Amino acid sequence: MSEEKTVRAALIIIGNEILSGRTQDANLQHLAKELNSVGVRLSEARVIADDEAMIIGTVNEMRAAYDYVFTTGGIGPTHDDITAECVAKAFGLPLIRNAEAVALMKAHYERTGRELNEARLRMANTPEGAALVKNPISTAPGFRVENVYVLAGVPMVMQAMLENLKPELIGGKTMLSRAVASYIGEGNMAAGLSALQDKYGALDIGSYPFYKAGNRFGTTIVLRHTDADLLESALQEVAALMTSLGGEPEFQDMSDG
Amino acid sequence: MSEEKTVRAALIIIGNEILSGRTQDANLQHLAKELNSVGVRLSEARVIADDEAMIIGTVNEMRAAYDYVFTTGGIGPTHDDITAECVAKAFGLPLIRNAEAVALMKAHYERTGRELNEARLRMANTPEGAALVKNPISTAPGFRVENVYVLAGVPMVMQAMLENLKPELIGGKTMLSRAVASYIGEGNMAAGLSALQDKYGALDIGSYPFYKAGNRFGTTIVLRHTDADLLESALQEVAALMTSLGGEPEFQDMSDG
Repeated sequence: MSEEKTVRAALIIIGNEILSGRTQDANLQHLAKELNSVGVRLSEARVIADDEAMIIGTVNEMRAAYDYVFTTGGIGPTHDDITAECVAKAFGLPLIRNAEAVALMKAHYERTGRELNEARLRMANTPEGAALVKNPISTAPGFRVENVYVLAGVPMVMQAMLENLKPELIGGKTMLSRAVASYIGEGNMAAGLSALQDKYGALDIGSYPFYKAGNRFGTTIVLRHTDADLLESALQEVAALMTSLGGEPEFQDMSDG
Repeated sequence: MSEEKTVRAALIIIGNEILSGRTQDANLQHLAKELNSVGVRLSEARVIADDEAMIIGTVNEMRAAYDYVFTTGGIGPTHDDITAECVAKAFGLPLIRNAEAVALMKAHYERTGRELNEARLRMANTPEGAALVKNPISTAPGFRVENVYVLAGVPMVMQAMLENLKPELIGGKTMLSRAVASYIGEGNMAAGLSALQDKYGALDIGSYPFYKAGNRFGTTIVLRHTDADLLESALQEVAALMTSLGGEPEFQDMSDG
């Protein structure tokens, strides 16, 4: 993969329970960090309802726009789990009962002594030709069709599936990040930061205000780039800017992009 | 407002720091619950980067598709805060220095003895004709243009802005919800739930598995509808289904939609 190419991914979070506020999503942040560790940039995420037309439309729009698409949610055994059939429709593929998935589930349910009924067997349905993504937690697999990975919504299961599929991902350069903070307000840093942004062009300079007890406010500056030397040089300039404004820069350990 | 009309809203979360995994979004869940309390349904959310073309395109797509659009993030004083100018471009309006916002900020900075410099004055820029959304926390206001509300990303500030604008929102009927749980697996509930879904049509029946220590697994069923009587009747049928499968239904208190 060329050094210049940015490999971009999108996440589609499927679930009425996220949109109603009942459940707090926990998959976006984990996916973002894991993808970055293999040089893939999470570039957009959407939260949509358990709605067939919406799922199909969103999958088709995003698989055309991004290198990888991940979906979470809607792959359980109940009537509201419609992700697999919607992804099949998005690709114009028949939804089949995947023999490999059935075999995995039969072995699992025999081992645990629970009944593998028709509802649970629905979790073995995939678009024809899909590659399975193993689920070491509860067996019912995720799957991949072309550049679209269909994963569970339960964070523990989603994380295990992601761990299994990660070696398949072909990333570009890993985005590196460094951060420095001080008790200087954003508004006092702004002019100097703007000059640094002009100087460093492609460097991503993020400015994040924080408040602490006792009416102390300050700013964390997060720098992102794939070039460690450029990052270090810019970091020292940001720290010097903070010092020039009367701040005491504190460097933060950031290894996660 | 007619009883039949569903008032739908979308949220646009603007910020590289969410997509990189550095920051966990805390605004979606709060917004969802608050909107529901006034009869507005959060129907989609998108997380996008601090990127002009992406912000403009997303704002224009969503303001045409939903009754209300809320954005969070990107309204601070630094170079990476580009939401206000992008929303102005999305509407084809000039970005102006809003005199009312300037007056509010002047009073605030005089009171606190801090410098109201050019960078901070950028936070008084709005599209021409925008209505301000007051910010009792840090003064720099949000604003509204037509059906698009532009809010801060910092949760404490966003929440205060939302509290101020809530009386303006015209909602439909409030979505009510009830939930019941038992230690019956989703796969055992599925057939019965599917029959209930067929019977109750427009009722939203969500099924959510849970795991507890000691290998105990079960399912929470969440029912949503605007009609409290219909909801109660369906809830009793779900509880009866759980009992018939050997479960002991526990009703959960859910007041938040």
